[in-house]
Amino acid sequence: MSPLLLSRLDRTARWMKRGGREGDVVLSSRVRLARNLARYPFPHRASPQELLKIRERVLTALEAAAPSAPESLLVLALEDFTGVERRSLVDRHLSSREHIRDEMGRALVTTADGVFSVLINEEDHVRLSGVLPGLQLDTALEMCDEVDDALEEFFDGKSAFAFDPDFGFLTACPTNAGTGLRASAMLHLPALSLLGELEDAREWANERGFVLRGTTGEGSEVAGHIEQLSNQSTLGQNESDIALEIENAARAIAVREREARNRLVEEMPIQTRDLVGRAYGILRYARRITGEEATQTLSLLRLGHELGWMKGLSRQRFNELSVWLRPDYLGVLHSRELSRDERAVLRGDLLRSHVSKVKLEPVFEQ
Amino acid sequence: MSPLLLSRLDRTARWMKRGGREGDVVLSSRVRLARNLARYPFPHRASPQELLKIRERVLTALEAAAPSAPESLLVLALEDFTGVERRSLVDRHLSSREHIRDEMGRALVTTADGVFSVLINEEDHVRLSGVLPGLQLDTALEMCDEVDDALEEFFDGKSAFAFDPDFGFLTACPTNAGTGLRASAMLHLPALSLLGELEDAREWANERGFVLRGTTGEGSEVAGHIEQLSNQSTLGQNESDIALEIENAARAIAVREREARNRLVEEMPIQTRDLVGRAYGILRYARRITGEEATQTLSLLRLGHELGWMKGLSRQRFNELSVWLRPDYLGVLHSRELSRDERAVLRGDLLRSHVSKVKLEPVFEQ
Repeated sequence: MSPLLLSRLDRTARWMKRGGREGDVVLSSRVRLARNLARYPFPHRASPQELLKIRERVLTALEAAAPSAPESLLVLALEDFTGVERRSLVDRHLSSREHIRDEMGRALVTTADGVFSVLINEEDHVRLSGVLPGLQLDTALEMCDEVDDALEEFFDGKSAFAFDPDFGFLTACPTNAGTGLRASAMLHLPALSLLGELEDAREWANERGFVLRGTTGEGSEVAGHIEQLSNQSTLGQNESDIALEIENAARAIAVREREARNRLVEEMPIQTRDLVGRAYGILRYARRITGEEATQTLSLLRLGHELGWMKGLSRQRFNELSVWLRPDYLGVLHSRELSRDERAVLRGDLLRSHVSKVKLEPVFEQ
Repeated sequence: MSPLLLSRLDRTARWMKRGGREGDVVLSSRVRLARNLARYPFPHRASPQELLKIRERVLTALEAAAPSAPESLLVLALEDFTGVERRSLVDRHLSSREHIRDEMGRALVTTADGVFSVLINEEDHVRLSGVLPGLQLDTALEMCDEVDDALEEFFDGKSAFAFDPDFGFLTACPTNAGTGLRASAMLHLPALSLLGELEDAREWANERGFVLRGTTGEGSEVAGHIEQLSNQSTLGQNESDIALEIENAARAIAVREREARNRLVEEMPIQTRDLVGRAYGILRYARRITGEEATQTLSLLRLGHELGWMKGLSRQRFNELSVWLRPDYLGVLHSRELSRDERAVLRGDLLRSHVSKVKLEPVFEQ
């Protein structure tokens, strides 16, 4: 049954698709609302029986409260899945390492396209997520709010959630208390990174109460120039204000990145063409490629695409490949645990088949 | 005047051309005869005046004694050249680091195609060299012997050369004494190297009185899988026997290398395609490339060529590129000392322009 459920997840998640604002820099926007049922211990202190009870309550509420089409929600109880299957959910950005560590009593509830999902018994009892392409935190927030309101209504008022008049919504980790809101934008910042100006951008964000930090891929490697911008604290602020502020900050960083891209091409024309050219050469002709190298070279190819140097791969395809090349996603695709070597070969095959469609523009050869 | 003389050297030396035996493994054959004039100190102990005197005597003798067309010999007195020009002669394999260290009184006498050349006042007063494509040490030896005999005749008998009845011809370094002959073959051994079997081949050569050792490029880096096979001692052996023995040993190593290439493709098909594919991708699309990376990737591309995976570059072109990409050759081509960065860009341009003509065979994609 579980593989069948996995196969109902779209290969192309909603956030991968085109349509978001500032899509040349902002890959996706995510809003997450953390909630906990009153009178139950937080997941890390709950017994298996309590976890199952919590999950049951939340699932019942979601079924009743979910927007428009509750039947469109897939319910994945994590204990029904193998290790590689659970990890592939992290690769798809639908779950987290924390969430899959102990599978018992955990669940992921998601639309097939991943635009809306709920983690049950991750760090908190309930984490509602809305993920959209480009910069649209407002819409993502609306999605979460709608379900949050419906849940509250189902549970018969705010008292169902752990709530404190002074602190707001209570969460397992105090930094999430308050609105329980984490709003984030994924930014592709290759030019700032190549010009060594990422630290400046991080400081700029920090001074304004945001965090800009590199995302990590498999193990501890840093994923190809992708940085997550998010709010540092959720306490004492209004939900929409937080989302709006992140949107504004993301827009400002996007301006910086675009300006850096222009400078990169003007000031380091050969080095930039060299980096993009090598990335293309490797992705086009290598037959074994590690996740780290694939992520790094794809990032540079994406930069080449945004600079107008090549056609044939869309932003959607870059987004898709960034997930499809991941180790456990590949494993699930081939229905088994793969060795590192097997993955490297399959990843090479995947990338070559797509990158062979790229047409280099004459401007690139200048 | 000196740049004019340099421009008379063929861009394509004779050894780079096709035609030699065992050309899939043996790049070139070189014979070198070391001779010293009697009654003069060896170059490292000679005064500038003595060096000039020696040079004058040898040049006069060569003019009279040189074979067929003495007018075809170019005479390059090293003090007429700039540092980059002198070093470019080493890049062309026409001179040596030792030879150009102190230019005063040193000279290179060579045919335009480099097939025959004489170093005056390198380690010894006279070093005659014959270099031919593929495996043909016999012919190279004949060329040197012919001039050696003519020189002896001009100098009026053997007594003109420092000769000892017990030790044979005397040389600055005792290991060269005897016949004064060094015969060597340059071998392209990528498969033995990739399979980790080079050490076995070295031992095999050692046990038979030969040396098989990696050639070094710029600085101390090892050049792309090119190994020099030569005799260890020249004492107490007949010249033709030495040449013949090296020929036989080179042939035996060529058999090993071919067998290793077959195994490489059979046992490591994906890894081999990966290495060759990456090399092609980099050479085709990089815009800056160090000498080391260029040499290494060209070696792998040459392997791909020999495996029948690509067309469009000939063995001659691989030989040519191996010299044309060298730092001081590039400098002379552009008439000045180049920075490391400038060289990397010019090298990238050179390689792209040639590698863009490569056509990959469908078999390579399997």
